[in-house]
Amino acid sequence: MLDVYAVIMAGGAGTRFWPASRAARPKQLLPLTSGGQESLLAATVRRLEPLVPADRVVIVTGEHLAEATARAVPQVAPERILREPAPRNTAPCIAWANATIAELDPEAVVMVLPSDHFIGDEAAFQRVLAAAIASAERGPVTTVGIVPTRAEIGYGYIEVGAPLAGGGDARQVVRFVEKPDRARAETFLAAGPSKYLWNAGMFFFRVSAMTDLVRRHLPNVAGGVERIVAAARAPTAADVVREIFPTLESVSIDVGVMEKAEGLAVVPGDFGWNDVGSWESAWELAPRDTRGNAAGELDLVIDGERNFVRSLAGAPKTIAVVGASDLVVVETDDAILVIPRERAQDVRLVVDALKASGRKNLL
Amino acid sequence: MLDVYAVIMAGGAGTRFWPASRAARPKQLLPLTSGGQESLLAATVRRLEPLVPADRVVIVTGEHLAEATARAVPQVAPERILREPAPRNTAPCIAWANATIAELDPEAVVMVLPSDHFIGDEAAFQRVLAAAIASAERGPVTTVGIVPTRAEIGYGYIEVGAPLAGGGDARQVVRFVEKPDRARAETFLAAGPSKYLWNAGMFFFRVSAMTDLVRRHLPNVAGGVERIVAAARAPTAADVVREIFPTLESVSIDVGVMEKAEGLAVVPGDFGWNDVGSWESAWELAPRDTRGNAAGELDLVIDGERNFVRSLAGAPKTIAVVGASDLVVVETDDAILVIPRERAQDVRLVVDALKASGRKNLL
Repeated sequence: MLDVYAVIMAGGAGTRFWPASRAARPKQLLPLTSGGQESLLAATVRRLEPLVPADRVVIVTGEHLAEATARAVPQVAPERILREPAPRNTAPCIAWANATIAELDPEAVVMVLPSDHFIGDEAAFQRVLAAAIASAERGPVTTVGIVPTRAEIGYGYIEVGAPLAGGGDARQVVRFVEKPDRARAETFLAAGPSKYLWNAGMFFFRVSAMTDLVRRHLPNVAGGVERIVAAARAPTAADVVREIFPTLESVSIDVGVMEKAEGLAVVPGDFGWNDVGSWESAWELAPRDTRGNAAGELDLVIDGERNFVRSLAGAPKTIAVVGASDLVVVETDDAILVIPRERAQDVRLVVDALKASGRKNLL
Repeated sequence: MLDVYAVIMAGGAGTRFWPASRAARPKQLLPLTSGGQESLLAATVRRLEPLVPADRVVIVTGEHLAEATARAVPQVAPERILREPAPRNTAPCIAWANATIAELDPEAVVMVLPSDHFIGDEAAFQRVLAAAIASAERGPVTTVGIVPTRAEIGYGYIEVGAPLAGGGDARQVVRFVEKPDRARAETFLAAGPSKYLWNAGMFFFRVSAMTDLVRRHLPNVAGGVERIVAAARAPTAADVVREIFPTLESVSIDVGVMEKAEGLAVVPGDFGWNDVGSWESAWELAPRDTRGNAAGELDLVIDGERNFVRSLAGAPKTIAVVGASDLVVVETDDAILVIPRERAQDVRLVVDALKASGRKNLL
């Protein structure tokens, strides 16, 4: 069996968890679902341990986030944290990590995972990963598709084809489908649990397979990351990254590679996945009392239901909500947010307003 | 013209402004209406300055509030701040202050005022006070009644009789009326602007007149305060207060004296009075933007109307309210409150819950 490396994409700049998320403290560095102190990124690395030890984990993040990222996962060596000087979407990110791993072990199998998702059933997750790794080892670039639980319009889908001969749980990918409208999403859901799966951004491949795909479909990106990796041990390594990386084509791995590739495989997964897309998701994932309130131990909800009440401040204040329901109330060290749960996505309006008024300390 | 003294009743322990109000920081010590730093008590003393200089102001407060009270009104000498060892309602409070003033100036006219009300039109207020002082100087114990603006069931009323001969703006008091039910309150309002007035707890009298009334109707109280005042310059003065004051009959000046007295006068007043009874009142009195929001300069209200958003913390956090209307959102140093404006009175439920769970640091 080949060695498996994990590439964790941790460049997200999410604004949907303001005031907890900031430019310098994006979603993956926050303890949004643990009810404790474990950040989403730390949970992602921990969940892989049975399959991928920390010394085979590569994290790609923004240059400005590198130190906070290193603190969040101290078991990952700092030289395995790749620092993007500018965001170029996922294709250059994955190509760079893949080229880096090719230097370490040209026979490796690589899994690419987002850093900021929640997994409810970790044992089931690990079984699906093992199946996807096995599929990738046999040759096909493989993805994991999430079995849908609702007619979601916020995700891309993967249309699933026939089982692969000798492919275990893996099946053919017919095509990647962009985010659908409501009617199409309903059709997808009605088609049954194994026809359309959610694209959760998880990819599994042999190093050499990805190298070939990038060279063929994104030659600019392939050439750039090869020059970056060739200079990786030179004293000027960081300068080379800063010079070359921002010139690479900014394109997602889905559009730049996957939609053009042939012979892809997909392993269906059903393991309590949640992309933790907003405070609404945080409420869904949090322990709740019989009235549906998820509140801190010191907080009070009186005559109210289904509220998410949480302090993430260093010195949490007691939050009292009286006679109000379905609200998100969040405190951080410098801000307080009150928003109806169903409008949680509109937190971006606050971020926009703060940007417009130049209040950078709150961004 | 006789010298006028003011007695300011500042013993309130209001819980209706939690988390801003606390046992050790009641409503009158808070800057609830100024939009700045002036407490309600400080505003009360300042408003009197044209009529009563600070060296003729006597403040009655709780022993545990004396130091904070002295800090709030530094222009009032500490020995003019009377310290109640236990609350005994307004009759013993006024009787003690009256007996104290009798020692200083037996010919004085005294006005008694609450410490925690808001006055919108200060010039009109001062004109009404001058009329009430003139009436008291002529003999009758005089009150100021507020011209009602709505059928309020939360206040007592004063039924107004004929004008007093030679009494200026003063009229006869027919009787004091306890808080009415809704139907009676509607009747009172319908009777016209000069038939039923709100009892705002403002009284004006000659020192000797109040001394006589207390001796006649509350002899226990009269005897007690005379012994307290006789010992006022002794080294044991504080001990005497602590021994005697808690034994005095706990009764309001309205029930204990005014309802039994004859020949009372009332001066109608219309000067933007507000008793600042809850966060709802604070919103009513605050400057509001075109959408009805009263928010701090650094706060953000996006897609919401008629909210009261205010930080009273030493280091205010930015409060962002998105997609919500008619809420009160208040921050202090150790707590955050979110409550619909129309339920503002239910803040007491928080105080009750904190008491029940023994969280004294928040009370």
